[in-house]
Amino acid sequence: MVRHMPAERTRQHAGPVAAARRRRLRADRARQLADLLRHQILGGRFPGGVLPHEDMIAAEYGASRNTVRQALDLLRAEQLVERQPGVGTVVVCRKYPHALDRLMGLAETLHAHGRVTNEVRTISPVAAPAPVADRLRLPPGAEVLYVERLRRLDGLPLSLDLTYIPMDIGLPLLGADLENNDIFRLIEETAQQPLGTAEMTLEAVNADAHSAAVLQAPRGTAVLMLERLTHLADGCPVDLEFIRFRGDRITMRGLLRRTL
Amino acid sequence: MVRHMPAERTRQHAGPVAAARRRRLRADRARQLADLLRHQILGGRFPGGVLPHEDMIAAEYGASRNTVRQALDLLRAEQLVERQPGVGTVVVCRKYPHALDRLMGLAETLHAHGRVTNEVRTISPVAAPAPVADRLRLPPGAEVLYVERLRRLDGLPLSLDLTYIPMDIGLPLLGADLENNDIFRLIEETAQQPLGTAEMTLEAVNADAHSAAVLQAPRGTAVLMLERLTHLADGCPVDLEFIRFRGDRITMRGLLRRTL
Repeated sequence: MVRHMPAERTRQHAGPVAAARRRRLRADRARQLADLLRHQILGGRFPGGVLPHEDMIAAEYGASRNTVRQALDLLRAEQLVERQPGVGTVVVCRKYPHALDRLMGLAETLHAHGRVTNEVRTISPVAAPAPVADRLRLPPGAEVLYVERLRRLDGLPLSLDLTYIPMDIGLPLLGADLENNDIFRLIEETAQQPLGTAEMTLEAVNADAHSAAVLQAPRGTAVLMLERLTHLADGCPVDLEFIRFRGDRITMRGLLRRTL
Repeated sequence: MVRHMPAERTRQHAGPVAAARRRRLRADRARQLADLLRHQILGGRFPGGVLPHEDMIAAEYGASRNTVRQALDLLRAEQLVERQPGVGTVVVCRKYPHALDRLMGLAETLHAHGRVTNEVRTISPVAAPAPVADRLRLPPGAEVLYVERLRRLDGLPLSLDLTYIPMDIGLPLLGADLENNDIFRLIEETAQQPLGTAEMTLEAVNADAHSAAVLQAPRGTAVLMLERLTHLADGCPVDLEFIRFRGDRITMRGLLRRTL
């Protein structure tokens, strides 16, 4: 007993206004269907990573074949699926979950998915610019360690991280194995106490040309921009980060509560 | 006592390799500076919304004028600032904070920033597609209310929301003032109990042409894609949503804890 997706109406209108309206409705329906398929794709719900045939999807979702095709086009444009001759539409995304409700380093977060390695692009002591000194509660111009890393999961670029650390915590990092360790872990070792809390903001931005090139993604690609100020358990701020995650590789997951 | 930003080195190399290296270092420095300025901009730290003169920024951050110019170019490309003749570089972004650690409707979240209105693009009962029925714990093909809304803050498009609600909760919404009320509030009225928790995922994606047009943003603009399944306090799932926030208008804010 198949019913139609919303707004799947008869084509009783004529003329350019009606045609524009039909195009809009078709695009709306394609988006609705794409959102549902995208959830199934990211949840690994299609056996063998192969989507059902267009006719099957059309029947299951009560959509027209045109709508199904347009929805698959949207998912292809997002690089979630590809059409493979003789096979059909297959899932090609490699998207990894990142917890939004717990403070963790990347290697900790993704340990079940593969090995995180870090290419250290820059590491050097610098005079803290005013906003950095301010947030790390240091005197203006105090020395901080600046670290810039390209982070990969099993060789695949995931994020570009810019990090500022007060020098008392940062100094031992100069000799540490940053290629294979989360900075969080190294900070906890040096400070001899666990991390406490972090204030975070998350935004979606289009990558500038240079950041995109470093991340090996197309110019203008959507990145999740995370800014995070992390404190030790004693409340002292120790790590200010600006992280650009490739939007096509990371999904943030969290649980929200109505009352705190 | 100004020190230089990391990697601000002398130009002692010659030839194309050295030139490429210089370009990379300059681009890295511009990104570092842009990230710091962007935090100040979003935090409303520049009096009157006017950035200091390039020379002042250069002195304060120990950067060259070229780096400052390139950083401002990045911020302009993100539409955070504009250059105004006779005034200088001014903040033009309208970016609003959205809590990541509490479950709230948009009007609740943004009540201090302006008035949220909702343009209802579609509202109609539909047979729940399989993944929707599954997540809302309904029998396959059960009727759900489908609502599609373009949400604005003081007239400015913020998000495009696709919502599925079980019919027992959804039916009263057909006669409700959806233009001026959060669906969360209406659900709580109908269910006569508060909401409980919501599972959420957040991603950065490039908007498809049609979604971008609805949001009045350029094609390919970065959107924050939020998928959220909300439960009543008694644990019953009541609201499945797919929300596209304009990336240039919303910043998600939250607090992370090392231990739960």
